[in-house]
Amino acid sequence: MASNMKAVVKASAVPGADITSVEVPAVKSGHVLVRVRAAAICGTDLHIYDWNEWAQHRISPPMVIGHEFCGEVVEIGEGVTQVRRGDLIAGETHVPCGECYQCKTGLQHVCRNMKILGVDVPGVFSEYALIPEVCAWKIRPDTDPIVGAVLEPFGVAVHAVLSEDVAGKVVGVFGCGPIGLFAVSVARACGASKVIACEVIPERLQMAHAMGATHLVNPQEDDVVEHILDITHGNGLDVGVELSGASSALNQTLAAMTRGGRVSIAGLQPKPPEIDIVNNVVYKELRIYGITGRVMFGTWYKASALIESGAVELYHAIAGEYSLSEFQKAMTIAHSGVAGKLILVP
Amino acid sequence: MASNMKAVVKASAVPGADITSVEVPAVKSGHVLVRVRAAAICGTDLHIYDWNEWAQHRISPPMVIGHEFCGEVVEIGEGVTQVRRGDLIAGETHVPCGECYQCKTGLQHVCRNMKILGVDVPGVFSEYALIPEVCAWKIRPDTDPIVGAVLEPFGVAVHAVLSEDVAGKVVGVFGCGPIGLFAVSVARACGASKVIACEVIPERLQMAHAMGATHLVNPQEDDVVEHILDITHGNGLDVGVELSGASSALNQTLAAMTRGGRVSIAGLQPKPPEIDIVNNVVYKELRIYGITGRVMFGTWYKASALIESGAVELYHAIAGEYSLSEFQKAMTIAHSGVAGKLILVP
Amino acid sequence: MASNMKAVVKASAVPGADITSVEVPAVKSGHVLVRVRAAAICGTDLHIYDWNEWAQHRISPPMVIGHEFCGEVVEIGEGVTQVRRGDLIAGETHVPCGECYQCKTGLQHVCRNMKILGVDVPGVFSEYALIPEVCAWKIRPDTDPIVGAVLEPFGVAVHAVLSEDVAGKVVGVFGCGPIGLFAVSVARACGASKVIACEVIPERLQMAHAMGATHLVNPQEDDVVEHILDITHGNGLDVGVELSGASSALNQTLAAMTRGGRVSIAGLQPKPPEIDIVNNVVYKELRIYGITGRVMFGTWYKASALIESGAVELYHAIAGEYSLSEFQKAMTIAHSGVAGKLILVP
Amino acid sequence: MASNMKAVVKASAVPGADITSVEVPAVKSGHVLVRVRAAAICGTDLHIYDWNEWAQHRISPPMVIGHEFCGEVVEIGEGVTQVRRGDLIAGETHVPCGECYQCKTGLQHVCRNMKILGVDVPGVFSEYALIPEVCAWKIRPDTDPIVGAVLEPFGVAVHAVLSEDVAGKVVGVFGCGPIGLFAVSVARACGASKVIACEVIPERLQMAHAMGATHLVNPQEDDVVEHILDITHGNGLDVGVELSGASSALNQTLAAMTRGGRVSIAGLQPKPPEIDIVNNVVYKELRIYGITGRVMFGTWYKASALIESGAVELYHAIAGEYSLSEFQKAMTIAHSGVAGKLILVP
Repeated sequence: MASNMKAVVKASAVPGADITSVEVPAVKSGHVLVRVRAAAICGTDLHIYDWNEWAQHRISPPMVIGHEFCGEVVEIGEGVTQVRRGDLIAGETHVPCGECYQCKTGLQHVCRNMKILGVDVPGVFSEYALIPEVCAWKIRPDTDPIVGAVLEPFGVAVHAVLSEDVAGKVVGVFGCGPIGLFAVSVARACGASKVIACEVIPERLQMAHAMGATHLVNPQEDDVVEHILDITHGNGLDVGVELSGASSALNQTLAAMTRGGRVSIAGLQPKPPEIDIVNNVVYKELRIYGITGRVMFGTWYKASALIESGAVELYHAIAGEYSLSEFQKAMTIAHSGVAGKLILVP
Repeated sequence: MASNMKAVVKASAVPGADITSVEVPAVKSGHVLVRVRAAAICGTDLHIYDWNEWAQHRISPPMVIGHEFCGEVVEIGEGVTQVRRGDLIAGETHVPCGECYQCKTGLQHVCRNMKILGVDVPGVFSEYALIPEVCAWKIRPDTDPIVGAVLEPFGVAVHAVLSEDVAGKVVGVFGCGPIGLFAVSVARACGASKVIACEVIPERLQMAHAMGATHLVNPQEDDVVEHILDITHGNGLDVGVELSGASSALNQTLAAMTRGGRVSIAGLQPKPPEIDIVNNVVYKELRIYGITGRVMFGTWYKASALIESGAVELYHAIAGEYSLSEFQKAMTIAHSGVAGKLILVP
Repeated sequence: MASNMKAVVKASAVPGADITSVEVPAVKSGHVLVRVRAAAICGTDLHIYDWNEWAQHRISPPMVIGHEFCGEVVEIGEGVTQVRRGDLIAGETHVPCGECYQCKTGLQHVCRNMKILGVDVPGVFSEYALIPEVCAWKIRPDTDPIVGAVLEPFGVAVHAVLSEDVAGKVVGVFGCGPIGLFAVSVARACGASKVIACEVIPERLQMAHAMGATHLVNPQEDDVVEHILDITHGNGLDVGVELSGASSALNQTLAAMTRGGRVSIAGLQPKPPEIDIVNNVVYKELRIYGITGRVMFGTWYKASALIESGAVELYHAIAGEYSLSEFQKAMTIAHSGVAGKLILVP
Repeated sequence: MASNMKAVVKASAVPGADITSVEVPAVKSGHVLVRVRAAAICGTDLHIYDWNEWAQHRISPPMVIGHEFCGEVVEIGEGVTQVRRGDLIAGETHVPCGECYQCKTGLQHVCRNMKILGVDVPGVFSEYALIPEVCAWKIRPDTDPIVGAVLEPFGVAVHAVLSEDVAGKVVGVFGCGPIGLFAVSVARACGASKVIACEVIPERLQMAHAMGATHLVNPQEDDVVEHILDITHGNGLDVGVELSGASSALNQTLAAMTRGGRVSIAGLQPKPPEIDIVNNVVYKELRIYGITGRVMFGTWYKASALIESGAVELYHAIAGEYSLSEFQKAMTIAHSGVAGKLILVP
């Protein structure tokens, strides 16, 4: 194994990131060294690249970025018992402390002392990556690395859509970026009677259709709430899934809900939105779930099972593959608001 | 409207039942008179026909039998507000009292003073039937009456399978009579990753396959528990649905479960079975749901939505249609252990 | 029975309300006529009295106001089967339509076509009141009418606190008006390990202490969130119950929660508040329940059982009793921000 | 530290157990060495002592027995991060593998490869004991070691009673050994409106009364089901908790339930009982939870909080304290069917 490798590094506290040569990390206790087979670009990577306010407060350069990946274990550290050399793994991005109240009650994914790959510790846009054993999710050796690389964001969709059952229910998905597209497919695969996709970019709506949406609504063309009430004969949504992070979409989600309905919110609002709590939450008795990451590892089992059974098909949501050297090109495309997920292949 | 009609009547306390002419019931307060468009034969009808021990204790002849049906409302009684003449309805079989603890807390379907159509009050194997308004479930006017007639048993399957979520889970269905076949289709439509159908009659297993079962197990040919452990790589079932009423099947269900799994039991055991509670319930921490009837009307909404969305397809489970005059012939076929549901069309 | 009675009437679209003589309502089908034994003043009554914006849009004068009550049935209408003359009843305030999706799935209390006593139909600040049978909750004949009159707001507290289990959990109650005081007592009676009451009026905090609060926090003296983190050794609240309707309190509730915690919101914000959804809902994976009214009748059974078993004691939250003629005086006191519930005895 | 210690050893495959001198175990990686401050005798210890059928199949002598304990950490092994020398700990008895489906989805307490202290690995009836770090539950340094020693069985009661909420509900506890007594106190502390204790030994019923039971039923004197129906005005139990392991008690539990009620079963039936599934589970739509051990560590947090808040008081259930040398005497008393828990103090 070479001692150096190519990696995408946020070198300093300014916008951008570079492909440079860095040392291959040495394996350490409780960790595995992975040869990255595929990685995927997430909205968070764009924030770090653009060096937005959140990134400025959170990231300490230099840092190898990227967190969604699939790779082959090439070395294992001391004390590692559940993973072996040669295993193909996908990666949980959240590194839990194992000691806090949340970690000790089945909520490691919202650990109070959580570290995130590619944010707080070096990430995966690189030829090799060092991963804590607890974050290694073994997948079948014949899994397409692209599928492995998107299991992590797919898991967010699984967790958000299935925080309660959707069987026989009308589900609205707000925002059809990659997670929204996955959410559409999960809802449809799990018995939703109607899946209404809401999104402003027409290409994304078309992809949502390919992923199983039964109805498409473009907020720039239609009154979203009225349209949903039409589709549902005045009843509104049983389930709303907010993934856009737009305050207008969040308020439309709540306004389009039927009384007693359930909402999952995973979209990241850039600033605190005004919400009509009285009319749209209290009087409607909504149940709202904040959603971040994936339950470790209930969501991973469910996500893997849905893919292996053929109930969902992820390829419709893949926009393209790029080599690691084409990283800057991939970022340009990502910034263009392209529909679908971009893959990096080291 | 004629004053007399053809009906299947249990005339006296002996085996059998006859097609005779009886008076068309007069509509009464809180009830609707329905012209029956299709009815379906249930195991309970066989018990009453055969005059088994349960029937002898429960039924007071003469009684028009039959309870699964679809019909058109031809007259409405005083105080009826939710149904109109001309509406097509399917029928809830359980008539709740409306006053007991269960009725006042959303559990009308297990009302303490419940009456059952075709058991405690006159049923639906007849040209017309008198139905309490509370039991009338409006369906779209273009619904095939056969589908309407099987909504009631389909609802049992929906209730049993979905007492908890099945998305991404391995589901075992024990017993593939009509409700078992429906259960297979519901599990598959709602995201189960594997649906293992267990049944001794090969024709029924074939039907289960057509309804979406991914694996078929015949207890007369295979060791059920071992086979399920093989299919699940030693983990066992996440969800078990017992619909056969055989004590061996119930024990196999429990034995095949993974620790922490969920079981729904709707099968009616002819006598109290011996159950290995310690090893198969306590040490495994199973959650067991007794299932009878359908939640009023949560299950009905869900069942209708699953059918209307095309997520399930019921026709594969229909064995044949007979006119009311062919009732005796239909019963002979029903007794033969035929695979699938038999329909009567008055 | 006299043909006229004293009643508090909102006579016209201006602030105030008058005690006048009106006709005793004639009993009608599906209703019971009740001699009011005690009634209680709710915040809603103040809004109607003050003729605030909400009231101007909702109320059509003239209207007998008031909705919390206890009374004796003196006449029953046609079709009434569950209540008899002489029964003592408390009243559910929400009149459900019985036909909508919510009504047919156990959510009558959030009926889409709901009418409210004393808001949409004549209320109970009067010697007699006409009550739909569906809203009559029979109580033991020896119940103190004051207890009967506050069962309705007590039910809101029961519903809010117990939307999930509180056993062994740290519960924060924000706002210690009558419902907040009741919430404190319910949390304590149901096994909460700590009950932290937050309120700006010192008298209310003292009452909260009498109702079982283990910790008192006055936001005008303390940093609420910091104080709660201190009390909980940095973990925060397992359960937050927002009853104040203040946007600052709602944000403190969310900020004081532990990750994975549960919040119930019943407080009515005068206008849509800004909420830090990302940090306090999404990243924390909170579960939020909008709460309005009481589940019909699950909450009523639970509320009655908690009182009858002696687990809670409501008298500490009663501020005083007034005759119907003293209504204006009672309203003056109510406007003063008095701690505790005011009772009217016709 | 001495190199030898006193311990209760099951030396060979015959009834009995001896106090002998054995080596103090050497601390090893991932473990802590504990000086035992108090231990408690469990029914399982009696089975091992008596060398019953279960014990003969499960235990490989020689084995230090005993598993319920409280102790002080005197040495920590390599890799231990959450516990320090000097910490006072109570012990989880179930040692999970950390790798199976159950362990990775929050169900470590039903791990498929679970080992049990004092059963599969050396136990705690000894001066020192070697405990896996994962099983060490830190308690406050001022905790009475007796309370610490009974946290483990108390946790079973917490888990069984609270598998669903008991607030405002009627709870029946069947079997008033130590766990039953704890169950009574938990139910009462968490808002149960009535707690009906059923037990054949009068002294245990008296203890149940002291622990908070509102009604006492002795099956040798009363018809249990009839008596419970009387107490509940014909409605039956909302919650049944079976802890006796007697098949008659299990059937009484099920028969005494209201429709739609919830049952938790932790009692260990000596052989598979006959159960009237149709009438008492299916037609009643009961929800049954198998219960074993304690959720790791949700139950521990809840159990500790209930004790620390003063909501429950465990001393009423303690029958006596004995030194380790008095082990044989303590066993004689334990065999006599004494009411309450016996403590060993090394």
